Amino acid sequence: MTLGGIEAGGTKWVCAIGSGPDDLRDIVTFPTTTPEETIARAADFFSNYGSVAAVGIGSFGPIDIQHGSPTWGHITTTPKPGWADTDIAHALANALDLPVAFDTDVNAAALGEHRWGAAVGLDTFCYITVGTGIGGGGMANGRLMHGLVHPEVGHMRIPHDHERDPFAGICPYHGDCLEGLASGEAIRARWGRAGEANGDEHIWQLEAEYLALGLVNVICTLSPERIVLGGGVMKQPQLFPLVRRQISELLGGYFRAHELEEDLDDYVVAAALGDRAGVLGSLELARSYV
Amino acid sequence: MTLGGIEAGGTKWVCAIGSGPDDLRDIVTFPTTTPEETIARAADFFSNYGSVAAVGIGSFGPIDIQHGSPTWGHITTTPKPGWADTDIAHALANALDLPVAFDTDVNAAALGEHRWGAAVGLDTFCYITVGTGIGGGGMANGRLMHGLVHPEVGHMRIPHDHERDPFAGICPYHGDCLEGLASGEAIRARWGRAGEANGDEHIWQLEAEYLALGLVNVICTLSPERIVLGGGVMKQPQLFPLVRRQISELLGGYFRAHELEEDLDDYVVAAALGDRAGVLGSLELARSYV
Repeated sequence: MTLGGIEAGGTKWVCAIGSGPDDLRDIVTFPTTTPEETIARAADFFSNYGSVAAVGIGSFGPIDIQHGSPTWGHITTTPKPGWADTDIAHALANALDLPVAFDTDVNAAALGEHRWGAAVGLDTFCYITVGTGIGGGGMANGRLMHGLVHPEVGHMRIPHDHERDPFAGICPYHGDCLEGLASGEAIRARWGRAGEANGDEHIWQLEAEYLALGLVNVICTLSPERIVLGGGVMKQPQLFPLVRRQISELLGGYFRAHELEEDLDDYVVAAALGDRAGVLGSLELARSYV
Repeated sequence: MTLGGIEAGGTKWVCAIGSGPDDLRDIVTFPTTTPEETIARAADFFSNYGSVAAVGIGSFGPIDIQHGSPTWGHITTTPKPGWADTDIAHALANALDLPVAFDTDVNAAALGEHRWGAAVGLDTFCYITVGTGIGGGGMANGRLMHGLVHPEVGHMRIPHDHERDPFAGICPYHGDCLEGLASGEAIRARWGRAGEANGDEHIWQLEAEYLALGLVNVICTLSPERIVLGGGVMKQPQLFPLVRRQISELLGGYFRAHELEEDLDDYVVAAALGDRAGVLGSLELARSYV
């Protein structure tokens, strides 16, 4: 079967043709420019393949994924210039005359990890990306998490010691929410340089503390069976052990579960599909339509 | 059908016989003393009714609800003296020779609200109690939330301005987690008197701010279709409008959803079953066994 997948990110789009990680026939990446140009470029890519059965889109957001809503398939309130109120799904469905599945980029990545990666066999888990922004998706009771809108874990509020870290946060909506304090953009804005390339221990200690606060809140709210982390910031190899240590300290032995104690290495893990979780998961989204 | 339900709380147990709110044949409340005495009292109550088909228990916790776990049916790490590692479910099943369903008190209340109350027809919602402690349960994708352990929303971390509120929090595990700052016990400990009976405006303003921070984090993580609030603290009539206003300010228009904007009155609501949500939901838990 030939499926199409799009990881529609705020910085770049990744489009792929195939049916999974062992059958990836073509993949292309291009920058996110204007909606018209970016959507046309994706449509061009897929229109070269006559036999595509459906296209799955995992999009940055917030987006409208409520079936039956008049704005289903739209990006809604993104601060990214030009992209608020953009109808992605219908534009692509019309351009390609194909069925289109539409979900968040992080739910797509979660679906990919569930099918082929670090979340195989789990019913309730989270996929959280720490990159330019911070987003989270996942499954609860065996199905992708939607609810009223969809999860937006990057915008939760966490403790912020202004004396130790006077940085005000970069979220245009909330200032010092989790994304405002701990995203790649926040690291760059706080430290005045490419934080991701910087080895300073205190940078990553602070980052790990914020991420751990966010993950502990996810643990307390959803009780996931595992947390899968992706995104550019998580490529810092020192971050995983620091985050795990902070989580353990913050939990303080409250939950008596070996996963949250001695087995934390298997509980907070890297995305097994790496940077391709999103686009592979978008192929899997497409499969749900055929 | 005759079912039994127990709301097994840390302060009191409520036991009921019947099949729902319109068929409640007997109900009794007694204080939570030692495990032996309390469990025996519940068993006595039910043993007077020969025809009970099953008993549902909604328990304080944390508890073990993983089927197949050697400690299924136990309260695990509670700070309540004498109750850690208490096997409630088997003790009652053996005493009554009846099938027993076991879940958290808040999941039981959520189930009651889903069957008869403020969450009828919803797939994904939360029931949060603000009483002696703070707990949360609910459904995701149409089923009760379990995951690795079960939700424990009271133990999430929220911003705490120590200058404005120097109170250190009362959680023995985490100090100033949500429960540590905003539970009924925290109100009493901070203000040095029965806070719940006190009308001081600033007490409830601060309480509303903490609760709203917690609820915003739940919205960002689970995206519930509605949040149902119960528990003794929520009986303060001024609290609901204050909490809604704070939620609206904290969200800052990020989610474009009328439920989170002009319709917040229908989004953050009181438990329709009031104090009986837990015990009625426990009857519904029992029904799942017959």
